[in-house]
Amino acid sequence: MLPANEGPSVVALGGGHGLYASLSALRRVTSELTAVVTVADDGGSSGRLRRELGVLPPGDLRMALAALCGDDEWGRTWSKVVQHRFRSEGELHGHAVGNLLIVALWELLDDPVAALDWVGRLLGAHGRVLPMASVPLDIVAEVELDGEVTIVRGQVACAVTPGRVRAISLVPPDPPASPEAIEAVHAADWVVFGPGSWFTSVLPHLKVPRLAEALHTTRAKRLVALNLAPQPGETDGFSPQKHLEVLRQHAPGLAIDVVLADTRVVDDREELEKATVALGGRLVTADVAMADGSPRHDTQRLASVLDEIFHEKR
Amino acid sequence: MLPANEGPSVVALGGGHGLYASLSALRRVTSELTAVVTVADDGGSSGRLRRELGVLPPGDLRMALAALCGDDEWGRTWSKVVQHRFRSEGELHGHAVGNLLIVALWELLDDPVAALDWVGRLLGAHGRVLPMASVPLDIVAEVELDGEVTIVRGQVACAVTPGRVRAISLVPPDPPASPEAIEAVHAADWVVFGPGSWFTSVLPHLKVPRLAEALHTTRAKRLVALNLAPQPGETDGFSPQKHLEVLRQHAPGLAIDVVLADTRVVDDREELEKATVALGGRLVTADVAMADGSPRHDTQRLASVLDEIFHEKR
Repeated sequence: MLPANEGPSVVALGGGHGLYASLSALRRVTSELTAVVTVADDGGSSGRLRRELGVLPPGDLRMALAALCGDDEWGRTWSKVVQHRFRSEGELHGHAVGNLLIVALWELLDDPVAALDWVGRLLGAHGRVLPMASVPLDIVAEVELDGEVTIVRGQVACAVTPGRVRAISLVPPDPPASPEAIEAVHAADWVVFGPGSWFTSVLPHLKVPRLAEALHTTRAKRLVALNLAPQPGETDGFSPQKHLEVLRQHAPGLAIDVVLADTRVVDDREELEKATVALGGRLVTADVAMADGSPRHDTQRLASVLDEIFHEKR
Repeated sequence: MLPANEGPSVVALGGGHGLYASLSALRRVTSELTAVVTVADDGGSSGRLRRELGVLPPGDLRMALAALCGDDEWGRTWSKVVQHRFRSEGELHGHAVGNLLIVALWELLDDPVAALDWVGRLLGAHGRVLPMASVPLDIVAEVELDGEVTIVRGQVACAVTPGRVRAISLVPPDPPASPEAIEAVHAADWVVFGPGSWFTSVLPHLKVPRLAEALHTTRAKRLVALNLAPQPGETDGFSPQKHLEVLRQHAPGLAIDVVLADTRVVDDREELEKATVALGGRLVTADVAMADGSPRHDTQRLASVLDEIFHEKR
């Protein structure tokens, strides 16, 4: 565990397993860490809670909190509890306990951020977890398959519809951004985009107008951590440079300082350099994937490289 | 809040709202407090969890833990969370969050007592909460109405069947008692029976053979706190002395040291004295009910009287 006030102030943007990976690494590098999390999930336990109780989908927030849990017995135990899923033939099947806990705190405190802070305190979290907006969102995606473009609504529909996503937008189109998230972005030294589901976890932040404005105007440096593999149904066959192109399409004019790519995913270094320079940044390649070849980030490797970048050693 | 090691070591036996009342008072009198709680509920959120997941019914345990919660912001907030119930048109409706949390810890730790201790730590509980047995139980009751006796199984059936209960037994008839509960009973200075649903919350402990044996053989003094009103469907028309009679029938030979009755519920003091003496005890009457006449214990009044009894000032 790092001492307080150690390391740069970092805001990590994303959702799901990608954000879990970046937070797991970033917590080793800084004690000044804020996650800003997508709230557009409509599947699984989160989707059911959203439909039944009209709340924000809690799942990605829960996972981010678990990634930051204290590394003592207390933090590890409560992290296991919040991540625990009921398995049965009945009505609770599939619900994650932390989702239920977060929702209960939302209902009791009527303040999404205060409620998440309480779960953070329970877990002894090394950092803060914020929703990117204070209302539940739907992702609307243009999906292309064999030259035909269809419009699908919802994260689940987006994931299961075959084809490649071309662009996303949000419903409602102008959701209230979380003020605490805007503040964190403005106060940050570094803002980290990705890794994660590109269209449904990484780009949505740029479609929340007030949050996007903060991401454009902050004096923080901006880092994009590219994925280790394309995602079926979303970014089938996307090269690393293609990821950067769609980022640019969704946030014209957003300057990126550093693009971090795993050495092995770079198929055409020249093209990736070009796409990086088009965003105003420089390319850093490093071995950040698991040594066994699986498309997952190695926490320690990713942490080391991020630390070097933050301290201008790369 | 009392300092540690203050007051006698007390074990409170019961379930539901009655136990909540006794614990709320006892926590003001001693810091050495253990609740031993019935696990025979089959209704509501507890009944659903028991049927869906095959676990102990958590509701009475949750309520006892909430009664002992820390009196700082932390304890009060988590107590509100565990007591919070979802309200919806859907599958979560009626579930208490603390029930789900307890069940998750049971599934994770596979040790009912360790799991309850974790919830106790979460709440900053002033005392320990134990199940009376480590398997879910069913209460089987003989219910009498207009001279006819019917046998009903289950706490809900017992509560909704019109008539008076004559006797109860448990299924299974020889459940494994919680070893920690037996230990607590043996180590106690005082054991407190009631108030509470007489047949479904107070007497079941005496039907768990190993726990009953401990209750008979402990060197602790035994106090019976009588109810403020009969309970429809269970103890319709029961006098205070009738409550003592059925206690004696369910635990022949159990010596009681003190019977505590609210002054206003005593209809026939002589008969009540007689029933108390038959159990080997002495009768203490005091104003322990709410001043507004409602059939609920006044926490402060009950605490004061219990404190006087424990210190032989009554």
